[in-house]
Amino acid sequence: MSTVAILGGGQLARMLALAGHPLGIRCRVLDPAQDCPAQGVAEVITADWLDAGALDRLAEGAVVATLEREHLPMRAVHGLAARVPMRPPPAALEQLQNRADQRRFLAQLGLAQPAVALPTNAEEYQRGIADLGLPVIVKTTLGGFDARGQRRVTTPAQAELAWTELSAGGVVIERLVPFDEELAVLAVRSGSGQIAFWPLISTHQVDGMLALAMPHPQGYRWQAAAEDIARRIAEALEYVGVICVELFRVGDQLLVNEVAPRVHNSGHWTIEGAACSQFENHLRAILGLPLGSTALRGASAIINLIGTLPSPSAVLAIPGVHWHDYGKPPRPRRKIGHLTITAADALQLDERLGCLRDLGITIPDGATSP
Amino acid sequence: MSTVAILGGGQLARMLALAGHPLGIRCRVLDPAQDCPAQGVAEVITADWLDAGALDRLAEGAVVATLEREHLPMRAVHGLAARVPMRPPPAALEQLQNRADQRRFLAQLGLAQPAVALPTNAEEYQRGIADLGLPVIVKTTLGGFDARGQRRVTTPAQAELAWTELSAGGVVIERLVPFDEELAVLAVRSGSGQIAFWPLISTHQVDGMLALAMPHPQGYRWQAAAEDIARRIAEALEYVGVICVELFRVGDQLLVNEVAPRVHNSGHWTIEGAACSQFENHLRAILGLPLGSTALRGASAIINLIGTLPSPSAVLAIPGVHWHDYGKPPRPRRKIGHLTITAADALQLDERLGCLRDLGITIPDGATSP
Repeated sequence: MSTVAILGGGQLARMLALAGHPLGIRCRVLDPAQDCPAQGVAEVITADWLDAGALDRLAEGAVVATLEREHLPMRAVHGLAARVPMRPPPAALEQLQNRADQRRFLAQLGLAQPAVALPTNAEEYQRGIADLGLPVIVKTTLGGFDARGQRRVTTPAQAELAWTELSAGGVVIERLVPFDEELAVLAVRSGSGQIAFWPLISTHQVDGMLALAMPHPQGYRWQAAAEDIARRIAEALEYVGVICVELFRVGDQLLVNEVAPRVHNSGHWTIEGAACSQFENHLRAILGLPLGSTALRGASAIINLIGTLPSPSAVLAIPGVHWHDYGKPPRPRRKIGHLTITAADALQLDERLGCLRDLGITIPDGATSP
Repeated sequence: MSTVAILGGGQLARMLALAGHPLGIRCRVLDPAQDCPAQGVAEVITADWLDAGALDRLAEGAVVATLEREHLPMRAVHGLAARVPMRPPPAALEQLQNRADQRRFLAQLGLAQPAVALPTNAEEYQRGIADLGLPVIVKTTLGGFDARGQRRVTTPAQAELAWTELSAGGVVIERLVPFDEELAVLAVRSGSGQIAFWPLISTHQVDGMLALAMPHPQGYRWQAAAEDIARRIAEALEYVGVICVELFRVGDQLLVNEVAPRVHNSGHWTIEGAACSQFENHLRAILGLPLGSTALRGASAIINLIGTLPSPSAVLAIPGVHWHDYGKPPRPRRKIGHLTITAADALQLDERLGCLRDLGITIPDGATSP
């Protein structure tokens, strides 16, 4: 029975822990929040990130450490890495955690990305806005997810306001990309450098939050280009584990939107929809086990359950629907669960998504066939 | 968050608990054994079956109770059922727990079964042996599984020995059936009487223990007959939950070997190989949720890991192999885990089973295509 230490006890840690049990792996998590979603499936230590005693307990007897979120104090990450081998390596997180550093890193690799400005003061901010031209997105360099910590700026007055509200910890400015669609490439890399990719993922946002993700029906067109991007990032970081690269597709060009050094919401369909899930493959990779097959198992999609849960009786009456409750109290704009829909093929998947839409569940336009 | 109370904390409870978490269901188990397999995935109460305080704690706040084994003191079952609704109903267990009662019940239903004798003393035992003719199987009426508590008897001396060793709690004598193969039909029935069947299962024993189970490639031939048997049993028992009927096939005739009022080893492939697993469907049924689809997802098989675990590095390098560690200390003739092998079709499944055989894992003859 191996123990894996995880920084963070949210739903990603919960699903890592659930994937671990059949493999004979127990997860132990550290999270400052009371009653985190990993409760009940992992050993939970409730303490501050920087509590040295808590890091000792987290590391005790663990064979490897990992993380389920990137917004962590680097001192906690280094503190844990000093106690037990950490995968991905802390240096990878250090390159990606700060948006400005991540943009510089991607530029050094020569990867296409939206035009950006990385201002360090108000004057550079004004010049950045002027150089890029409105509209732009202003994002804090640290923290922020699900559209928090970012503003879409279309007027000079909004630019002023965004600086006032967000600039305390630094910001990046990104030119708004008129993309055709948003994609994600999910990869897993082993300690020996073996790398595997799941089929390219189509992602659909509603109000700045991921609403639906599925293997892209025409993903083969951009699969090789997306794999090349993810491979270059993973290799440059000497990455071990699952990594997700979010992309904008503009015609046949792929621009890097964001890199997440962890298992990712856009890959939750892999639990039922792929031979080996992102959660199991992350554990396999960090433990030095052979990587599992990333092949599809029929058609599938996931829908995030945001704010409140629908009626299980209605939803579970639809064949091929899998319920994932994260055990989190309902709250507006909070991801509290997801549904996976599996089907024999795209047609049957469309039909099942249609049944969910009939129940009042948000299915983004464009996610189903016309 | 609903709580389900389970009598028994073995691997079946472990897999019920793992299926429960995504549904927002927590399992609480009672088991007299220290460190039972449900540890780490369910709330575990370690106490005697008849400990009233333990039954109170087991039932507290639970919405429904169930069981993961049939060899339980009926006083414990009734004690729990007095505290919280129990599914399947205790009366179903009462009909099936004792082999002699089960044989009488099956005879009353008019179901075909091996010729049996139900002796109540030494004289009736001798007459039973004489009437049936050797060879026979002598089984204890209570307890016993995986060939424990039973003897194959081919000589009068063995008949004498079997009586001495097994008769204390009563025995049944069954004529040895020259079957073509062993099958299992797995069903789930809801409280409203809805019933669903997984495709007929082919089971392969080695040394009296289940070694391999898989959806039967030609199962459609006997599917309707098997469903009819399982339906009649489930309806007569007013059964709610998953039930498994083990069958002997002799030509086109199906004889009932044994009925298990619970999730069953022969259905473990349903975790990866069916749209909804036996574990999830048992929870759905006992909680009054809609039943999940029992449709196949490609080809699959499970292999029991008995005594010791193989090398995970070698096994997990084979695509489509899923590891299930029960967290039990290795011991000869003890089921300590299983492997599920998934594949696109029967040919690929054969190939993958061949890879496992090459690693020294027991694949029974006849389980793969010639």
